[in-house]
Amino acid sequence: MTRVLDLATIPGDGIGVEVVAEALAVLKAAVGPDVEVTTTEYPFGAEHFLATGEILGDDDLATLAQHEAILFGAVGGDPRDPRLAGGIIERGLLLKLRFAFDHYVNLRPTKLYPSVTSPLADPGEVDFVIVREGTEGPYVGNGGVIRQGTPHEIATEVSINTAYGVERVVKHAFELAEKRGKKVTLVHKTNVLTHAGSTWSRLVSAEASNHPDVVWDYLHVDAATIFLVTDPARFDVIVTDNLFGDILTDLAGAISGGIGLAASGNVNPEGAFPSMFEPVHGSAPDIAGQQKADPTAAILSAALLLDHVGLPEAAARVTEAVSADLAERGSATRTTSEVGAAIAQRVAAAAPTH
Amino acid sequence: MTRVLDLATIPGDGIGVEVVAEALAVLKAAVGPDVEVTTTEYPFGAEHFLATGEILGDDDLATLAQHEAILFGAVGGDPRDPRLAGGIIERGLLLKLRFAFDHYVNLRPTKLYPSVTSPLADPGEVDFVIVREGTEGPYVGNGGVIRQGTPHEIATEVSINTAYGVERVVKHAFELAEKRGKKVTLVHKTNVLTHAGSTWSRLVSAEASNHPDVVWDYLHVDAATIFLVTDPARFDVIVTDNLFGDILTDLAGAISGGIGLAASGNVNPEGAFPSMFEPVHGSAPDIAGQQKADPTAAILSAALLLDHVGLPEAAARVTEAVSADLAERGSATRTTSEVGAAIAQRVAAAAPTH
Ligand SMILES: CC(C)[C@H](C(=O)O)[C@@H](O)C(=O)O
Ligand SMILES: CC(C)[C@H](C(=O)O)[C@@H](O)C(=O)O
Repeated sequence: MTRVLDLATIPGDGIGVEVVAEALAVLKAAVGPDVEVTTTEYPFGAEHFLATGEILGDDDLATLAQHEAILFGAVGGDPRDPRLAGGIIERGLLLKLRFAFDHYVNLRPTKLYPSVTSPLADPGEVDFVIVREGTEGPYVGNGGVIRQGTPHEIATEVSINTAYGVERVVKHAFELAEKRGKKVTLVHKTNVLTHAGSTWSRLVSAEASNHPDVVWDYLHVDAATIFLVTDPARFDVIVTDNLFGDILTDLAGAISGGIGLAASGNVNPEGAFPSMFEPVHGSAPDIAGQQKADPTAAILSAALLLDHVGLPEAAARVTEAVSADLAERGSATRTTSEVGAAIAQRVAAAAPTH
Repeated sequence: MTRVLDLATIPGDGIGVEVVAEALAVLKAAVGPDVEVTTTEYPFGAEHFLATGEILGDDDLATLAQHEAILFGAVGGDPRDPRLAGGIIERGLLLKLRFAFDHYVNLRPTKLYPSVTSPLADPGEVDFVIVREGTEGPYVGNGGVIRQGTPHEIATEVSINTAYGVERVVKHAFELAEKRGKKVTLVHKTNVLTHAGSTWSRLVSAEASNHPDVVWDYLHVDAATIFLVTDPARFDVIVTDNLFGDILTDLAGAISGGIGLAASGNVNPEGAFPSMFEPVHGSAPDIAGQQKADPTAAILSAALLLDHVGLPEAAARVTEAVSADLAERGSATRTTSEVGAAIAQRVAAAAPTH
């Protein structure tokens, strides 16, 4: 019996469209003949909003929820367009999906592939995963503005951290560390954000007692940025809150060869909702439609997707093909499709023919 | 008539004691015979707290307020000591001083001196200043924990941003840019922290209209970390909130040769309260008392102090001596006092003898 993998794609805006096309082609090449991939493309994004006034409705969520997983490109239009101000697309689409589908594990592996150039002079071996909490913290949208536009304006942002929310992501991080280098680093700012800090510290320390073979340590977020540029090899699994995770994963992407290579998964581990896989980079309106974008991050996100839906061999074929492709990248510039096709070809060559 | 410079020193804990001693000696050598430096040393810090139960009382604040400026070392004891948990010293001493003395400009210059090694392979010219807001944002301590220790625990952290607080630091940043490279970069996360983001964006854009010759741009905090490692030369003045500033300044310190070189000022520009100057690094209990600490960051902080109290020539003598010393640093390790003495000697040679 053929296994069906039913995917939603949300290419989004700008280079999102170009990179998702390549990622999908690679994914299809990777699964082999025993898996039938069906895809439904959804038009959501800044352009769609400007054209229709719609961002993402509850009916859209219900439709998307039918799929097994979501492959997401990037969303966002011209940053100076006043109609897109205030993060309306980011909040109304990307964050809405993460919250509605309870993507509490925002999984961001960082690996410096051999032959990829890092901006660091001596990076050492970079191979760690940032487990970023995805459904609470300062991302909840809580807060407000009073006396707006006056000299007495006050704006607040409230970070919400629950034992329920922190515990589950911390547990996931320790379980991941069990399968990797057996080390967890909690990153927070417990000496200043003492309320949330105490919750995170307590729950990490409690979970650690269930994993005697995993060592764990703690770093303030400011110190963590130092180590990411001076000694990234020290990290195995980093667990942190939504905002710190946002910051650290971009930095991690940068030191491991740029966010053109950084993949991510917005994961609901229990499978109550479809998980969503997306490159860390944005829609890059300035180079959109020019076949200049590197589809590698989207392709590696497709590998995370395959792993998540229980096709680890197909996932491994993709990461191996990417690794081989990276090793042979010279200074010649290739188009988005050329990179995608080269990787797809390698994947196809390794995939079972029957 | 001799100008008197009446300083308070708070050496604090660990290496704070060692580096403040050197910074003070250099400062005294720099001012020349026309300035009489008087100093009063205060014992505050983790050790003092453990010995006496006192951190910093209102009477201490009143006494400190009498001085013209404060030279601060570093505070903090053994991070695993439960008596110091929850940032009790950081909040009760360092942050209390910043808040009580209205240090709304947390000034953190970043300069990669020629001959200093950066962890970046190709840093380019690094010379920018981070103007970090020092009295509000997520540092206000607002928030709390309910149902602590239960599965229903909820912890909150509230970031408070006022037009009053944001406007004055933004104004300071633009005025600084006027005297430097005429560029301001606002760093925030306006697409997610939309409430505070709107206040910051509006006030930066309003202040910009008073400075037609200063260009300004905006970066999300995550993107800013990428540029700090891929293109730090693009920055001139960065203005940002208390927490983002904390994170970015450690990263900035790291790329410019390490926080052993990173100086800072907690400044009340109006002089309503004494400003306080401190190295960005911590008390480093692991190497304390061993003469292993680099006093350069504390010495450069003393230069910021001299500049602030209206002795810019003495300040320049210090930075020039540091620059010359850095240029001649080989691989030989020197003790804290050796570095301090070498810089003090250079400074003395350049200072007026009468
Ligand atoms: C686009 C934005 C809302 C998003 C985030 O802050 O999470 C992005 O930066 C990311 O890291 O996925
Ligand atoms: C010690 C700590 C409270 C402090 C801060 O977070 O401001 C430090 O990291 C700094 O940057 O001066």
